Amino acid sequence: MSELELPVVAVDRIVETALEEDLAAGDLTSEACIDATATAVAHAVARHELVACGGVVFARVFARLDPGVVFESHVVDGARVPPATKLWTVRGRARAILSAERTALNLVQRMCAIATVTRTYVDAVPRGRKTRITDTRKTTPGLRAVERYAVRVGGGQNHRDNLSSAILIKDNHVAACGGVRLAIERAKRHSYTCKVECEVDTLAQLDEALAAGADIILLDNMDTPTVAEAVRRTAGRALLEASGSITLERVTELANVGVDAISVGGLTHSVRAADIGLDFEP
Amino acid sequence: MSELELPVVAVDRIVETALEEDLAAGDLTSEACIDATATAVAHAVARHELVACGGVVFARVFARLDPGVVFESHVVDGARVPPATKLWTVRGRARAILSAERTALNLVQRMCAIATVTRTYVDAVPRGRKTRITDTRKTTPGLRAVERYAVRVGGGQNHRDNLSSAILIKDNHVAACGGVRLAIERAKRHSYTCKVECEVDTLAQLDEALAAGADIILLDNMDTPTVAEAVRRTAGRALLEASGSITLERVTELANVGVDAISVGGLTHSVRAADIGLDFEP
Amino acid sequence: MSELELPVVAVDRIVETALEEDLAAGDLTSEACIDATATAVAHAVARHELVACGGVVFARVFARLDPGVVFESHVVDGARVPPATKLWTVRGRARAILSAERTALNLVQRMCAIATVTRTYVDAVPRGRKTRITDTRKTTPGLRAVERYAVRVGGGQNHRDNLSSAILIKDNHVAACGGVRLAIERAKRHSYTCKVECEVDTLAQLDEALAAGADIILLDNMDTPTVAEAVRRTAGRALLEASGSITLERVTELANVGVDAISVGGLTHSVRAADIGLDFEP
Amino acid sequence: MSELELPVVAVDRIVETALEEDLAAGDLTSEACIDATATAVAHAVARHELVACGGVVFARVFARLDPGVVFESHVVDGARVPPATKLWTVRGRARAILSAERTALNLVQRMCAIATVTRTYVDAVPRGRKTRITDTRKTTPGLRAVERYAVRVGGGQNHRDNLSSAILIKDNHVAACGGVRLAIERAKRHSYTCKVECEVDTLAQLDEALAAGADIILLDNMDTPTVAEAVRRTAGRALLEASGSITLERVTELANVGVDAISVGGLTHSVRAADIGLDFEP
Amino acid sequence: MSELELPVVAVDRIVETALEEDLAAGDLTSEACIDATATAVAHAVARHELVACGGVVFARVFARLDPGVVFESHVVDGARVPPATKLWTVRGRARAILSAERTALNLVQRMCAIATVTRTYVDAVPRGRKTRITDTRKTTPGLRAVERYAVRVGGGQNHRDNLSSAILIKDNHVAACGGVRLAIERAKRHSYTCKVECEVDTLAQLDEALAAGADIILLDNMDTPTVAEAVRRTAGRALLEASGSITLERVTELANVGVDAISVGGLTHSVRAADIGLDFEP
Amino acid sequence: MSELELPVVAVDRIVETALEEDLAAGDLTSEACIDATATAVAHAVARHELVACGGVVFARVFARLDPGVVFESHVVDGARVPPATKLWTVRGRARAILSAERTALNLVQRMCAIATVTRTYVDAVPRGRKTRITDTRKTTPGLRAVERYAVRVGGGQNHRDNLSSAILIKDNHVAACGGVRLAIERAKRHSYTCKVECEVDTLAQLDEALAAGADIILLDNMDTPTVAEAVRRTAGRALLEASGSITLERVTELANVGVDAISVGGLTHSVRAADIGLDFEP
Repeated sequence: MSELELPVVAVDRIVETALEEDLAAGDLTSEACIDATATAVAHAVARHELVACGGVVFARVFARLDPGVVFESHVVDGARVPPATKLWTVRGRARAILSAERTALNLVQRMCAIATVTRTYVDAVPRGRKTRITDTRKTTPGLRAVERYAVRVGGGQNHRDNLSSAILIKDNHVAACGGVRLAIERAKRHSYTCKVECEVDTLAQLDEALAAGADIILLDNMDTPTVAEAVRRTAGRALLEASGSITLERVTELANVGVDAISVGGLTHSVRAADIGLDFEP
Repeated sequence: MSELELPVVAVDRIVETALEEDLAAGDLTSEACIDATATAVAHAVARHELVACGGVVFARVFARLDPGVVFESHVVDGARVPPATKLWTVRGRARAILSAERTALNLVQRMCAIATVTRTYVDAVPRGRKTRITDTRKTTPGLRAVERYAVRVGGGQNHRDNLSSAILIKDNHVAACGGVRLAIERAKRHSYTCKVECEVDTLAQLDEALAAGADIILLDNMDTPTVAEAVRRTAGRALLEASGSITLERVTELANVGVDAISVGGLTHSVRAADIGLDFEP
Repeated sequence: MSELELPVVAVDRIVETALEEDLAAGDLTSEACIDATATAVAHAVARHELVACGGVVFARVFARLDPGVVFESHVVDGARVPPATKLWTVRGRARAILSAERTALNLVQRMCAIATVTRTYVDAVPRGRKTRITDTRKTTPGLRAVERYAVRVGGGQNHRDNLSSAILIKDNHVAACGGVRLAIERAKRHSYTCKVECEVDTLAQLDEALAAGADIILLDNMDTPTVAEAVRRTAGRALLEASGSITLERVTELANVGVDAISVGGLTHSVRAADIGLDFEP
Repeated sequence: MSELELPVVAVDRIVETALEEDLAAGDLTSEACIDATATAVAHAVARHELVACGGVVFARVFARLDPGVVFESHVVDGARVPPATKLWTVRGRARAILSAERTALNLVQRMCAIATVTRTYVDAVPRGRKTRITDTRKTTPGLRAVERYAVRVGGGQNHRDNLSSAILIKDNHVAACGGVRLAIERAKRHSYTCKVECEVDTLAQLDEALAAGADIILLDNMDTPTVAEAVRRTAGRALLEASGSITLERVTELANVGVDAISVGGLTHSVRAADIGLDFEP
Repeated sequence: MSELELPVVAVDRIVETALEEDLAAGDLTSEACIDATATAVAHAVARHELVACGGVVFARVFARLDPGVVFESHVVDGARVPPATKLWTVRGRARAILSAERTALNLVQRMCAIATVTRTYVDAVPRGRKTRITDTRKTTPGLRAVERYAVRVGGGQNHRDNLSSAILIKDNHVAACGGVRLAIERAKRHSYTCKVECEVDTLAQLDEALAAGADIILLDNMDTPTVAEAVRRTAGRALLEASGSITLERVTELANVGVDAISVGGLTHSVRAADIGLDFEP
Repeated sequence: MSELELPVVAVDRIVETALEEDLAAGDLTSEACIDATATAVAHAVARHELVACGGVVFARVFARLDPGVVFESHVVDGARVPPATKLWTVRGRARAILSAERTALNLVQRMCAIATVTRTYVDAVPRGRKTRITDTRKTTPGLRAVERYAVRVGGGQNHRDNLSSAILIKDNHVAACGGVRLAIERAKRHSYTCKVECEVDTLAQLDEALAAGADIILLDNMDTPTVAEAVRRTAGRALLEASGSITLERVTELANVGVDAISVGGLTHSVRAADIGLDFEP
């Protein structure tokens, strides 16, 4: 899991934006109440079980305010930890730590939450099944890079990064082209380096998409028996992705009928922030 | 409600960042499948009951891609609408509308969700009680301006915008200063234009904060009888704000015992995206 | 050809950067020599045969300095035009036109050059052959979006946009993984939404890549007979892309032996600027 | 040659933009295929004879992704090196090196190319002649600072940096002012700290420019005998700069008749990227 | 005084903008005249008595150009020093020091000037009086963060940071609301976390503002006897701030009649740059 | 005077930065107190005699918040106007006008002040004398483009824009080169497109600079008789610029002895903000 990589350019931009928003003009309270030379040691502690995620981001927030802050990580990203686990420690100027606290927590509480919920979906895939859990483009505007990383940390996969990294033909594209087959043909002429995925609502459309040579077929809001039939008809000629109102129970069902992937918008658009506190050593 | 104002400089930055993330290098699918001159009409439709929020943001996303897109709003921000309500309509080049769709929805789904959940909390305050529901700094990094607007649209109030717009003395500041009284005194010497709020854990600390002249006292994680006692002791000498594990039931309880404000991190850090679809006219 | 689309967010950033570089502190000569209210009409004229490209970019440069400048296009992007063709006309404040002239020309001279050279390669593919000509990531830093557009305008295709939009396994990745097969397997596990392309130097590696299920195989610097053999062995199981020292003659040869695509770094990294003048009406 | 200086603020902006373009969302292939802790040593090697240029830029690209990458330079900027020369070495995390490779090469291949072609022009000036070879504003939008540096590294000089750093009166300015003399007079009144250069097409205009006190006179597209006559008439009263369709042969001719400077747009607008490979130690 | 804190994110943005403005394309003179490896030692020296301010900013300008420049501070911010005092020393590459000199001095000359003039106002408050001297939003666009810091260094206080950090009802707001009372009521309903300040022109308005519960009342351009009467009437129910044509003499007068604060636009909008030279060791 | 031109790219950046600083998170007071649909008409009025400057900047601030605000100018930049002159009028949404007021005034108060003080210096040059008054690089960081414009509006000239637009050899460069002559020779070899200016402290250095062919010689802190002698010796071979402790009286003296230019740092680094009010129509 420690094998995953955060894109530093994106992370730096996110951290800078977040600090400008919260701290651009300084921290009145810390300037008033904390001596400039006071130091502190603070531990980020998980208040409940979670999948750890975002140590590098956490560290960068503090380092941006004071390069002298020393960061220590007690877990690798992707580790599932019990309540009260000490995740990361920062030591340094007390003002820098107090000023950065909220920004750092806002980021990692979201990242851990996404990693944790993703893990839950991944774990709902029965052992032996290769069904992948993937995110969507329903990410928080501005935070896509870190949210996609959190999905990977949780054991999920990333769907296409953005509108220029793959082709995904939706119903409106199909309508505009005059049908699934015509849309797929136009797409395949347009690019050979990216896969062509096509959303279908019916098995008839599935047949058309298979005939036209779609690489991936998105089965939108189909019930499990229909998905099972889609798997049977497809017979490996394309990858099948299910989406729409995905619960944990449906993950298990859909994996059992052999769908290749399940995309879940809720991995990123509706998470509850993980509860992580920053406990200062007395 | 239409009286509220979105800060345009912040909105433009947010929209620009979001579009760079999703669309900087173009939309492969629309270029492949949609004729350049094709036009479309699309309606944002609420899939469930919600408080509408973000029409201006929605409009700007499409206008940024094509100033020729015409926007029409069918609701004012703050209106609670039933399922299947048409919220906003865009008309213009089909490619621009399809390319902007996801970015626009990602933003307003979050804004409507925040407005809606805020309204729920606001409605839990019994009629006749003046208790205010407020947000916290637990906003999504980069989106604070639009999230705070959504809170206001939902009928809530905004707490301090950032670390330089008010003083909020927390436990670590108290510890560093050697006590509630000393911390408040330092804070009051530091600024006379912003209120001094101090977090307290006990009634003894409350007494100390009152004696030191705090403007607002944050009652952190106190049970309702203790809050009631705090209200009694305070007797209007300071505003009292309750926070920590706030449920709708507790909002009613706390309002009934007379607390002035209740701050709820969950208004912004843990919302489920509202389900809003973009329906294209055939 | 007019069907292609320039990403406006990227174009605006490029134009802004270019104008800051050349004009941030003003245009001394125009301020000294041109009356503030003087107007001018100027025509961008091709000094030699070329494929027109970049009218929208050209227009934006002038409009950025003065929204009152009126732009008229006499050609569609993608039209091959003879020498002395009037491409675009701008009318408006003389100072704005003179100040923007060099920046506008620097951009379109490069875009037309890329479109023109791409067209030459595309035209070298014998009629009836479906071989595609594609660009690479060897674009000018900062100008990728407009250069990729120019390749499309010239009739070429775009390869992956950047490191996050597709997988391309090169020799160093192969070496690090311990072989073609292992690398492809790791890649396929990593993503199902993007194609896995693998560079191979030998037919043995080709066989290995086919066996491992690569979507695209990049035949690096192979002579034509070897490529022909590769096409034969592959038999449609993967797309074959040739690259390395591609001349126009080799394009014809390689297309004739049936390769699916030919990627040419020189489309973007080594073009001679097209000669386009801005002729002012007297 | 090592005496020349790259402006770091501009370089950092260029590197940041380039990395955002190629890598903002991460490097799928390296994440999939390269272990996070794997290290590598890679050498930038000239595939042909060239003038080395851009070591500092090369180093910064890798350092931006991983400050732990160690850079070593084997040549000074400006050294002409034979084919197969090892120019620079980077050692560090393999992922960072692979992810930065293309961006780093795109930049230095262009810089070395400009330095090399400039050197060719400079070497065409006969020994003993003081004619200077200079660039123009026909640089790549966004890359002016590094391209101008490369010209200096090649032994050339920089012409004015941008529209606000010197006055260059062109034909349209002359026409607007009603003549060469009037234009120069307006320019000289406008600024005394920058030289006034005026483009002329005829010897009559030259005489007028000399009489009006131009500091530099740009002889636009004149044949060599006319330039010789211009030198004779000028007799040191102004610097003479030749431009327009400059070949290496014409450089020698023009230098021999005593022109002070020759400006060559092709130094920057039409270079073939130098062929530089990044060879990894096995 | 050393207890005060500069917000680093804002400082970095200011330094970057300043260097881009002055140095983005390099320093012609230093490149021409100074050897690349030459080193220098330079001391910032106060040419007159002043309050030192901005050592951190000074250091960052040089460090941005060359991280190898070593900075040493001989004074703490806030120290009043006699003429000819050595304030700060930089040692390092001569080119970096010469190139950064003007930018660094432009910043600290302004900061020291603000700190010094603020100290003069602060010193005009008679011993034993608690009247605070505060700045306004009349700061230099783009430099607010460093100018507000300089006011604090001079012993002054900061008024609200910006339009979103406190409420200040001015005459136009009063007119729009239909009176002082109505305006204050609307403001108090709008926010409970920030103080409500209201500008008044007459004692009648003062009474109205007190009755409505304003936290701070801004006495605009009142003569001293009227201010004295305002203090008497207010009797501690609100803080009173005087503003308008404030001279040092009036500071003393107003402090003596017991006003709580005096806000002075001239602290930031009209300072004479402090005279600070950069003396190079021979 | 209306002939002068503000660089729009720089102006837009300055306005954006200023509004982000003051208004990024909205205007609490206007949102609370002003109805969203209320409109207003406001006039910028000079409270004392001044030279008008910055109408375009003023207009842009309001337009940035609301494109619907209508701007009307009653004066041209450069007009000297008596007290109580109405300069500019804005009409539109009251909130937008109130929110933009301070930012707009901060900018134009500084611009008018610079134009006005420059005019005073320009007027101190006796009729018939051609001595130019020029600014320096002692401008406010971030505002150089608008401050230089204000100097031109005041009738002054601009010195070099920045370190890359001209060569100015100062004492430290002289020392590093081993003398005035050597420094000038190095500079002249480095660039032929920009003038070489050299600072001298003595007449002996002046002679050396003249012999070496400096284009401009900066007479630093010389008394008037010495400047007169310098003019005599120079005899038109170079332009002479005086600087250092320049008062209005010295301007007259120096102009009378025939110096070509006088550079005055105080035009930009030490101005008192012009008093301009924004009067709302009742």
